[in-house]
Amino acid sequence: MKMFNKVVIIGTGLIGGSLGLALKKQHLAAQVIGFSRQQKNARLAKKAGAIDQIGLSLDVVADADLVVLATPIDTIIDFALKIEKKIKQGCIVIDVGSTKERIVSKVGVFIPNFLGCHPLAGSEKKGILNLQENIFKGSICIITPTAKTKKNVLNKVKLLWKKLGARVIILSAKKHDQVLAFTSHLPHAVAFSLISSVPGQYLNLGSTGLKDTTRISSSDANLWSEIFLSNRSNLLNVLSVFNSKLAALKLALASKNKGQLVKILVSAKQKREKLK
Amino acid sequence: MKMFNKVVIIGTGLIGGSLGLALKKQHLAAQVIGFSRQQKNARLAKKAGAIDQIGLSLDVVADADLVVLATPIDTIIDFALKIEKKIKQGCIVIDVGSTKERIVSKVGVFIPNFLGCHPLAGSEKKGILNLQENIFKGSICIITPTAKTKKNVLNKVKLLWKKLGARVIILSAKKHDQVLAFTSHLPHAVAFSLISSVPGQYLNLGSTGLKDTTRISSSDANLWSEIFLSNRSNLLNVLSVFNSKLAALKLALASKNKGQLVKILVSAKQKREKLK
Repeated sequence: MKMFNKVVIIGTGLIGGSLGLALKKQHLAAQVIGFSRQQKNARLAKKAGAIDQIGLSLDVVADADLVVLATPIDTIIDFALKIEKKIKQGCIVIDVGSTKERIVSKVGVFIPNFLGCHPLAGSEKKGILNLQENIFKGSICIITPTAKTKKNVLNKVKLLWKKLGARVIILSAKKHDQVLAFTSHLPHAVAFSLISSVPGQYLNLGSTGLKDTTRISSSDANLWSEIFLSNRSNLLNVLSVFNSKLAALKLALASKNKGQLVKILVSAKQKREKLK
Repeated sequence: MKMFNKVVIIGTGLIGGSLGLALKKQHLAAQVIGFSRQQKNARLAKKAGAIDQIGLSLDVVADADLVVLATPIDTIIDFALKIEKKIKQGCIVIDVGSTKERIVSKVGVFIPNFLGCHPLAGSEKKGILNLQENIFKGSICIITPTAKTKKNVLNKVKLLWKKLGARVIILSAKKHDQVLAFTSHLPHAVAFSLISSVPGQYLNLGSTGLKDTTRISSSDANLWSEIFLSNRSNLLNVLSVFNSKLAALKLALASKNKGQLVKILVSAKQKREKLK
């Protein structure tokens, strides 16, 4: 028996589509249905083998065992509201949004079997055309249960991500958003600002250092504006931390304090070496 | 006939060693001698085939056609002073330091055949153990002649880098340092500050975005302190530009101005896409 009989993925972009493909390849679902507001995306997902069938309306969730909300984060709560009355009892609903506190605190109220998930497996290349079957292999998936989360729901969702090759980490939604502000949203904000600083006529002299530090500034502007806004207060705090670190480096430089500069750089290097 | 009869490389680290290896593999020099203050490095370079012979004193430059100063930037001027009286007439001297204005303005005065070079081919992994024969292939080498640079010296050095596979770009030393402050020194300063901002206990949740943006913060602390200090005033200016870009993003975020945020991110993304 498959882990799920019928899975409905709402939003067949990079993560939704890759999840569908992985579910099918790993034989974890008897049937995968994809729903997208953009029919073109759903058709591409079907063509790529990421879904078995295109759902023409949200009524398709009626007999699903698992519904995955994989739309842009500003629409996840809306979609959850739209499917709330349509899903059967016992249906598990997960999302894969990049921030969790707002979504979990809202959706958890009206969908009891909802569990927030965040697979750290995105890319600056979004969309179904960048579909990757193995996108979750070796990645981390953060799951954000609440005090109300049922044990069987948590265990099943944990098992699902493990079977897809992800290492599962459990955090509260609040903690998730605090951590991700540092590990993901800050690097993005910095990368966007970094490339913005470089005069256009110098771009032909960019070496690998500039390329690597700014790769993620190719990420989708609308998606990342939503992520930033949905984690606004944590990100503002984290940006202040970053500003103070940069100010310390700037001060050491301005005052020609080589000893202090070396100290800052040595401690940065040591930290970077802990980042596996 | 080889391009050079005898080449002496002073400083057999990553760039010096890789240059020696490339010169030998491309048959550009009849003999490559390596001199290092650390005998161990010179021995490793010889073992790796990067040099034919170890120079035991700087007297070895006496009959060289080309001397390459490939030591850390804070020692380049000292070594130039030490070899000034030892080299034969017509000997070409180049350096491969990461900043140029100070070196070129000083060394150019007492060594007429000196030409500043900066191959954009470093790595966060320094040292002879990371030797790479093809390190210059497809890379950019910036050459910084002055009004006094002889045409034949410029042409010969240009040809050398071309034969090593680099695309040669000519800039004044002053312009070089202004440009590199944006394209190299700023990304490094930002990467060091970025990793310093992330609490140690969150490092296990770093995804590829954090890894890529901070890769160059593994660079050598002493080397980069010297680079920063040798381009201090340009870098301080550039850090102010970066701060203003980050402040604009922060303001849009703080004021929940999604339109402005998207605008900032779209323009960053467009710029990044011009970075080949």
